[in-house]
Amino acid sequence: MTSGKESRLSVACIQMQPEVGAKSRNVAHAIELIEQAHARGARLIVLPELCNSGYVFESREEAFALSEPLDDGDTIGAWASVAARLNVTLVAGYAERDGDVLYNSAAIIGPRHVLGNYRKLHLWGDENLYFEPGNLGVPVFATPFGRVACAICYDIWFPEVFRLAANGGADILCVPTNWVPMPAQPDGLPVMANLLAMTGAHSNGLFVAAADRVGQERGQPFLGRSVIVDAHGWPVAGPASATEETILLAEVNLADARRHRQLNAFNHVLRDRRPDVYRSAEDE
Amino acid sequence: MTSGKESRLSVACIQMQPEVGAKSRNVAHAIELIEQAHARGARLIVLPELCNSGYVFESREEAFALSEPLDDGDTIGAWASVAARLNVTLVAGYAERDGDVLYNSAAIIGPRHVLGNYRKLHLWGDENLYFEPGNLGVPVFATPFGRVACAICYDIWFPEVFRLAANGGADILCVPTNWVPMPAQPDGLPVMANLLAMTGAHSNGLFVAAADRVGQERGQPFLGRSVIVDAHGWPVAGPASATEETILLAEVNLADARRHRQLNAFNHVLRDRRPDVYRSAEDE
Repeated sequence: MTSGKESRLSVACIQMQPEVGAKSRNVAHAIELIEQAHARGARLIVLPELCNSGYVFESREEAFALSEPLDDGDTIGAWASVAARLNVTLVAGYAERDGDVLYNSAAIIGPRHVLGNYRKLHLWGDENLYFEPGNLGVPVFATPFGRVACAICYDIWFPEVFRLAANGGADILCVPTNWVPMPAQPDGLPVMANLLAMTGAHSNGLFVAAADRVGQERGQPFLGRSVIVDAHGWPVAGPASATEETILLAEVNLADARRHRQLNAFNHVLRDRRPDVYRSAEDE
Repeated sequence: MTSGKESRLSVACIQMQPEVGAKSRNVAHAIELIEQAHARGARLIVLPELCNSGYVFESREEAFALSEPLDDGDTIGAWASVAARLNVTLVAGYAERDGDVLYNSAAIIGPRHVLGNYRKLHLWGDENLYFEPGNLGVPVFATPFGRVACAICYDIWFPEVFRLAANGGADILCVPTNWVPMPAQPDGLPVMANLLAMTGAHSNGLFVAAADRVGQERGQPFLGRSVIVDAHGWPVAGPASATEETILLAEVNLADARRHRQLNAFNHVLRDRRPDVYRSAEDE
């Protein structure tokens, strides 16, 4: 039934440990890891949230100094060069400056040009002190291999984000993230962040590739456990280590996203939605 | 900080095995199990989907013959009697007839009167041959112990249902269900149905009590694995056996639902939503 060849893609998630403030070193380290992922066959490579700047800022001034515009910055320039040189597509989190406004953003960078930009819609904790909430919606970017959307970290707590991506035609949701411990996480069970990636994938027929960071920064621990999930919602690579830098790699058939949305002769996870009911309740 | 006593409630999920067509026997068996749950302290008792009629109908005529109106049927009458006698609230799935139209419904029955009715919004498989999709939205029912909403089985594949319940003020989502195996479920991992209950609870700060059936019916296996999940998204009872009848019981503090929605000084899982973004995308 399924050739499995119609839309094959090797996806990598780079789980790394940036250091806050060490931008040029973080970018150089990311490029090393991108080269390693490419050498293992990756064509779409996802990097963590704010992987050029680090995450735990001490002040607005520090965040501002580490930010840069999408179209005129050292980080995006360096990543665009490596994407062109290796013929890969990157989805990578960076601190974006637009005028004097900052966003927690992800650049989508193809081999020929920057394909687009995503700005985190749902800010977590002290991010609210430094960044503005995203104002670009959930754009879906066409690539030669399929359609890509982005979400960043806390965004996946909002199932609406998966819906907007899937309804917009995305095949895969790339998630640069800096997951932090959540209240009441029990020992010995998967972290809720992984479960949110799985159920979001399942309920929407979407692949999900979530690249987390590891380590601690100014007392804030991060969760690691990057994961690549298929369009049924099950991990095909990871969850990765909680503490170590690593590269997750999976070969997927993106066409399965659209195929798996049809569950049986009657049921399709997107077409079964009841917007009549959802909308009338929102209007109340 | 938390007394844990302000809104204590013992919730039970009755995992049972109805037999298609044996309505009076199914109802009598449900009442036995309700009595057992009550004897163990339960005040809110959830029963499976279509637990009076059975699930796998052979024809519209068979489904029709097993259905009954909410306000004039043997099943609801018997359940209302036991609710009054034991001073408990029941949420129980039944085949509802309204004129000549059938719905896959759940009755919410308090000790003094029937509190309301929920009609399954998202029909699964051959249910589409017998039932009409629900036309009552996701109502939230006030009780002396807290606010209750319902969803039935495939409804929890739609995160919009959790959102409607939480935004409507529900503290707990009761889920009568007849979960069936999903495509690509791996061995050795939790069933996706349990994960959907957990992430739906977590993303909305809702308790979830899902009562599944067990056994096979005309070749259709069911999953069991009933579960009661707290407002952080973690099981506090179950998942239950995949095959055996059983009663799950948990004592919860429903007030935690509202408290746990606030994750830190900045973040609240409902107030952080971006309806501006979600709505503009739906309007496109």
